[in-house]
Amino acid sequence: MPRNEVPTSRRERPAKPALTRQGIVDAALAILREEGLARVTMRRIAAAMDTGPASLYVYVHNTGDLHAQILDALLAPVSEPLPDGGTWRARLGELLARYRDVLFSHPEIARMAISTRPDGPHYLALVESILALLVEAGATDRAAAWGVDLLMLYPTAVAAEHATPSPSGRAPDPGADIAELTGRLAAADPARYPTISRLGPALVSGSGVQRFDWALDVLLAGILADRSGTE
Amino acid sequence: MPRNEVPTSRRERPAKPALTRQGIVDAALAILREEGLARVTMRRIAAAMDTGPASLYVYVHNTGDLHAQILDALLAPVSEPLPDGGTWRARLGELLARYRDVLFSHPEIARMAISTRPDGPHYLALVESILALLVEAGATDRAAAWGVDLLMLYPTAVAAEHATPSPSGRAPDPGADIAELTGRLAAADPARYPTISRLGPALVSGSGVQRFDWALDVLLAGILADRSGTE
Repeated sequence: MPRNEVPTSRRERPAKPALTRQGIVDAALAILREEGLARVTMRRIAAAMDTGPASLYVYVHNTGDLHAQILDALLAPVSEPLPDGGTWRARLGELLARYRDVLFSHPEIARMAISTRPDGPHYLALVESILALLVEAGATDRAAAWGVDLLMLYPTAVAAEHATPSPSGRAPDPGADIAELTGRLAAADPARYPTISRLGPALVSGSGVQRFDWALDVLLAGILADRSGTE
Repeated sequence: MPRNEVPTSRRERPAKPALTRQGIVDAALAILREEGLARVTMRRIAAAMDTGPASLYVYVHNTGDLHAQILDALLAPVSEPLPDGGTWRARLGELLARYRDVLFSHPEIARMAISTRPDGPHYLALVESILALLVEAGATDRAAAWGVDLLMLYPTAVAAEHATPSPSGRAPDPGADIAELTGRLAAADPARYPTISRLGPALVSGSGVQRFDWALDVLLAGILADRSGTE
């Protein structure tokens, strides 16, 4: 048989990605990185995996489930061990800052995360750690249980707030936002809006990190002050 | 001249809506109510107003500006006078509940409101009222200035959280969400997630209204406890 007629063996073709839940999530993450969340559809993933969309639904229930799995996979670094020996406040701050940073790095996921709750191991590990730290800090059971929602909603909302691209299609520029806001507040009529006028500089003061730390302190002080769950 | 040849006079045709900023916002609100936010585009509004999209940009800068104007118009009922004689806490709770209710009634706007800050008169009136009540309650200037953001972000995020239609296209059912969450929490491995297992019932307890009131109490207690702005 002439050399140029040797048939390509199945073994020499690149292997198809494994059709498993994890394989689907890995394919989705690759598309997310390269093309953005809008392109992460069942059809696109199926094409990347050289199969049909119907085959995927055996492993992933729907788009919401897929997005939840993507978020859970992105949260893997958040549940890595914390440095030993810090106070509960330092450890809680570190956990929530890691969570915020993941969402800031994936702005489309942050907007999605407002309404989609993952239930994978990394998300559950994060919830478990926050709950345990709140209990260690002295929160009542109910304040810890209700507080974890509030503590996680805050970084999610802040990340989603900065997630919308500007109309020009460029990434948002927080500095430009503040400058614009400062201008608008300075223009507010002092007769109609006396408190806005008086507090103008304070309304736009502080860096994002300073405000984030301040908000955590406010949330934690409020959660720990609640004794109503102790009957 | 035969009757069927009488030309329609300009006066007998329906009047074109006035091409003003307010006229554009009114047309956008009508499309929002009838067809949803996704259909509120400059092109669609221009068609409704019997003009070209380019004419609109004289009055409205871009889609973000348009959305901010829509939100401001929806906030008109929020800035109606509060009942006399209530405590600052009652008045603040009423204002934020009104704000939440507007966003809950317009779930697509709630998602948009996470990243778009209106600067119209109704939004500024709401910010002014919240700031004044925080100062009345004894907040430092900085705590009031930074706290207003946190207080307004919370109802926005909660409304946006419930704003995503279910995959079936029906409105989301919070009861079904809770039942599903309860099931998932009950299934969490107690050895890996001991605090989640122990607090399971508390994690899903309380109605939306109870949790909202609780969250406001937590935020306000934390904001009022901050004395760091008093130098």
